[in-house]
Order: sequence, then C-alpha cells, then structure tokens
Amino acid sequence: MNPLYNFSAGPAMVDPAVMRQIQDELLNYKDTGMSIMEMSHRSALFEAVVNDAKNNLRQLMQIPDNYEILFLQGGASLQFSMIPMNLMHTHKAAAYLNSGVWSQKAIDEAKRHGEVIIVGDNAEVGYKRLPECNVLPLGMDYAYYVSNNTIYGTQFKQIPMDHAVLIADMSSDILSKPIDVSKHGLIFAGAQKNLGIAGVTIVVIRKDLIREDVDVDTMLRYATHQKANSLYNTPASFSLYVLKKVTDWLLETGLETITKRNEHKASILYEAIDKSTLFSNDIKVEDRSLMNVVFTTNNPKLDEAFISFAKKYDCVNIKGYRSVGGMRASLYNAMPIEGVKKLIEAMHAFEAGVKL
Amino acid sequence: MNPLYNFSAGPAMVDPAVMRQIQDELLNYKDTGMSIMEMSHRSALFEAVVNDAKNNLRQLMQIPDNYEILFLQGGASLQFSMIPMNLMHTHKAAAYLNSGVWSQKAIDEAKRHGEVIIVGDNAEVGYKRLPECNVLPLGMDYAYYVSNNTIYGTQFKQIPMDHAVLIADMSSDILSKPIDVSKHGLIFAGAQKNLGIAGVTIVVIRKDLIREDVDVDTMLRYATHQKANSLYNTPASFSLYVLKKVTDWLLETGLETITKRNEHKASILYEAIDKSTLFSNDIKVEDRSLMNVVFTTNNPKLDEAFISFAKKYDCVNIKGYRSVGGMRASLYNAMPIEGVKKLIEAMHAFEAGVKL
Repeated sequence: MNPLYNFSAGPAMVDPAVMRQIQDELLNYKDTGMSIMEMSHRSALFEAVVNDAKNNLRQLMQIPDNYEILFLQGGASLQFSMIPMNLMHTHKAAAYLNSGVWSQKAIDEAKRHGEVIIVGDNAEVGYKRLPECNVLPLGMDYAYYVSNNTIYGTQFKQIPMDHAVLIADMSSDILSKPIDVSKHGLIFAGAQKNLGIAGVTIVVIRKDLIREDVDVDTMLRYATHQKANSLYNTPASFSLYVLKKVTDWLLETGLETITKRNEHKASILYEAIDKSTLFSNDIKVEDRSLMNVVFTTNNPKLDEAFISFAKKYDCVNIKGYRSVGGMRASLYNAMPIEGVKKLIEAMHAFEAGVKL
Repeated sequence: MNPLYNFSAGPAMVDPAVMRQIQDELLNYKDTGMSIMEMSHRSALFEAVVNDAKNNLRQLMQIPDNYEILFLQGGASLQFSMIPMNLMHTHKAAAYLNSGVWSQKAIDEAKRHGEVIIVGDNAEVGYKRLPECNVLPLGMDYAYYVSNNTIYGTQFKQIPMDHAVLIADMSSDILSKPIDVSKHGLIFAGAQKNLGIAGVTIVVIRKDLIREDVDVDTMLRYATHQKANSLYNTPASFSLYVLKKVTDWLLETGLETITKRNEHKASILYEAIDKSTLFSNDIKVEDRSLMNVVFTTNNPKLDEAFISFAKKYDCVNIKGYRSVGGMRASLYNAMPIEGVKKLIEAMHAFEAGVKL
C-alpha cells in the first residue's frame, strides 16, 4: 500500500514511525504487561509520562522557569472561558484582535465575564488578511490573539501586539517554528494538530498569573491544575502519552529541521498555486499561513472534481472549511515533503486534464 | 507470558480481546489507511463511531427516548460543576447524600452555586456503611447520590432516594448491572472503569432538563453538546472510539452475563475474606460493593508484604486508597473470574505462609 497523505485540519496525521511505536507497545508498556491506557494516572510510570511531556515541551519551546506547563481537558474551546474566568479580574476588561471564527468564539465567551475591546478586526475582507492592532487601550487585563487561522489560511509572522499579559491561541501552529514564550503571559493549544491527538490542551502560563483567590470552580481554576501537576483528576491519559511520543520525535528531529521543512512545504505549494492558471489563493502574501494553505479554482464543481481526483494521488482531506469552500491543505509537522509534492503532482495533472 | 490481572481502581483493564482489536486496526481504520486517532471528528466515519457508541449505550442501559446521551470532556469532576450550573436554577438548592470523598467534592462545588442540604452523611463511621436518606425536603432542584464508592468499597443496591430530578454519579459501577434510568434525571460516569479509557464522560440526561436559557458559558451548557451531537468541539476522539469498542463487547457478551459474572467475582472474593483468619473486610455486609472489594490484615506491614506477594500471582494494583490503607481489588467488567481466583489463591498461600 502507498503511504497516505492526510491533509486534515485536525485531528491530523501523526508521524508514521511514531504511530508504529505506539502500536508496538500498545499491549505491553515498558514490560508491565499492561497498556498505558489501562494504567492508573497515579502510577509512577504514568507520572513519568506527564513529566517527560512537560520537559520535552520546556526544551522545544524554550519555556523559561517562571512559566508553568499545564495539560488540561475540554479543548481550546474551554480555554475561551477559563482565560477570562481566571485573568479578567482587575479591570474586568480585555483587548481582543479578531482574525476569524476562533477569535470570535473566544470574544463571545469573554463578554460573559467582562468588557471586550476589539482592537482590530478584518471581518470586512472576509478575514483574508490579518487585522492590525494600532492602538491598545490602557486598563486591559490582557490582550488576546490567534496566531494562525486554519479556516482562512492566515498566520501572524510576528507577534502582533505588546502587552504585559499577552495571550495567544496557538492551536494550529504551536511548535511548527520557534516562538518567544517570554513575550506572552499565556499560550494555549489543542494537541491534535502539531503535537499529537485530541484530548489534551497545553497551557503555558506565567506563574504570577496563576491565582488561587479567584471566584472560579475548582476544575476551571489554573491553580488547581498547577498544584496537582496536571493530575488533579484523571486526564485523557492516552492522549497525554501520545503527546509525549510526538514531542520525543520533535526533539529527535530538532525544531530547526521542523521549521525549515514547514517553510519548504508551504513555499513549494504556494509557488505551485501562484504559477497555476487554474488554482489560486487570494490571501495577502505576507499573511499566508505555513500551516493551512487554502486554494480554489473559483468553480465549486471543479473544486469538488479536484478533491476527488487528488485521492488517486493518495492525497485526502483537502476539502476547504464549509464557510470558505475550495481546498485546504494542512501542512502540520507530521506531513512529509513527499505528501506536498504528491499534491502538486495531482494539481499539475488535473490542470493539464482540464485544459485538454 | 501469563495474563496479568490489573485490579486498578481506574484507569483500569480493558478486555484483552478488545485491546487486540484496537491494536490490529490502530494504523489502518476500516481500510482508510489512517488511524482513527488521525481522523477528523467531522468525518462520516468518526460520526459513525459517536452514533454507534450512543446506540450501544441506549440498548445496554435501556435508555428511554426522552433521554439524551452526551459525551463530554473534563471527567466526572467537571460534572460536579456542570450539574449545579445547569440544574440549580429554580430553588437554588439541592439535596446531597454524602457517602464519601466523591460526593463531598460534588457538594463543595454545588455550594458555589446555591444551597446544599445534606440529607444523609456517614462520615462518623468513616464511610464504612452507606448513609440513609430519611427525609428529603421540598424545594430542591435535584437530589444527588454516588452509586458506588471506590475508596471505601460501598455500593447502593437500591436507588436510595426518590426525586423528580434524581442525579447519580455512576462512575464506578455504570453498566456493571441493569439500572432503571427512568428513575433518574441525570446519570453520569467517567468511562475509565467499566466502559473503556479516560478522556470521555458519559452524561445521560432527561431531555426536559436541558435548557438553553441558563446563564452558563457555552462549553459548560448541556444544551451546547446536545445540539452538536457531542461534537461541538473536538472530543477526545480516541477515547470515544475505545468506548464504542468496549460497548460492542458488552453487547456481544450481554449485560445479563456481565451482571452474573460481577456477582460471582465479588461473592467468591468476599467469601474468601470472610473465611480467612488473616484478612478481613469491615464494611456492613448489605453495603459491600461488587466493584471495589477492600480488605486488610489490620497490620500495615503485612498488607504491604501481601501486595508484593500477590504480584507473583500476576495480581497487580491491589493497594488500597491512601486514606484507607490495606488492599483494594477493583472487579470491573473487564476483570475475568480467573483473575479473582488467582487473587484468592495468593491470599491462601500468603495466609498459610504467615501461619507457619
């Protein structure tokens, strides 16, 4: 069987060598005779998984000592609530940069807890370019942005704002490249795109922001999870184990290699799109995402035909988000260059066929 | 290698045949060339997993049509908050039966949202017998109990209260025997004991209790998850898949067989304990749990020696909860009778050795 290239926006592909390791040790983890998924979260072996995953992330992201790493449940969507619940308490106000659906959802939850000031919004251009934050008012508990927008295929190349408590939703580009953690108060991301599978959300938070004296339910307080080393209650343990395996693989590969590979994958695909007379991408060039490349023939029927056609080239899940249409190729860390080359091959063949 | 008997209180063992199936299809789910964990939660194949798991539970628990089945994240601990958030709104008061740590934690969260009336508490006997609810005051939004108490090894054999909105935490005995769903307003359980692995919490809720007009954040409203068929955001998809596999296995085995097997396992173990001159269990006989059997030599050093000794008989994770000490054997659905027989063999051999 040929290798399959899964361009899904998430949950997404895991490196095949990592997947084989997971399969190999699935019934017998470290000679215990048990699967990791059958093991108590209070066991020494499972605690080691949590600590290894934390150490891996600390190394990979160069997380300073004054930051805590938490592993939480509920997905990035629960962070939309936990962030204002835990951090919107001095001024009861926060600044949000609106770059699409995911920031909008975060804004909607934050409004339940205080005042939200929108410091930039690009809705009027259908989120096809990134908003700029020209003025950041004083008296904000925090400032919030989404680093990469999966739906529209936009990505901030630089940190777009400067604030003592800067918050970034990095769900779709975490560890795809180096970032400066110290410029942020809190960074969060679901694991299911660049770091493994669904079920665990990573929260990197500056320790001084973790307060016990907030009027928030136990499970929704960051302090609860900090005190318990992310084992306050039973976590999605298998998802945490996969996070450990994937971050092992990232460490072995090296973030520099991963970064170069991601740049290369995106650049050859954008080049193919820009050279094509059939396919196009109308995102402002500087704002184009290296993670999610959207493109279209501007003809829904042709788009659909291409999505089917690409399957013959072992390229699957390239359908665009429902509100945008067209195609979307997600090029997360585990997507090999060969997959992108295969997709370009499919584009060329399809384009030649259409022209005949 | 001998089979291993993992008596962990949870996460706990999964049936070995189910584990092998999971391993077999781990890299290639239904000939897609992908792992189920790499698959979009919006794909038809993954939606089928969710619907199959729901249908399996509906059959197994005989859930009436006026009840919804939800799959949520955050563990049973997040339900301690979601229940009062969503249901404590008419009288702002609820009745709780306190049978140990897990009901106490639920009580602590509920107090954040309204008045809590304790309608029975057995703290004074160290939770070694179950509390009775003699009077249930009027004007309660709901009445709450924990059906099985893993730490102390107690279990309600009958539903202990009668209320229009009766809530049960069945985390540690769900689907170990038939229960009458229609007597309840809401039943919830983490999957990692009787139904699979950690990462998914099952909520069975009567539809009239699901209200959209509650002042609760999106992710914490039952209505959000009902409308989205439990796919509002990315769930812990692999955990859901394991839930489907385990409930397939339960359906094939039949709940009647499972129930008889569970009764048999507990009865031979309690019999061995009661006949022993070394080991004992001081739980009131009628209140003894079929799921978690606690026992002790009343000598911490001997207990420790036995825990080590049992490993030679392939019986692991029988250490009692830290606040209780001694031993605890958890006999969830996946524990075969052979495991319990092996444990009894170890007890006999240890007892003989001690007497020499």
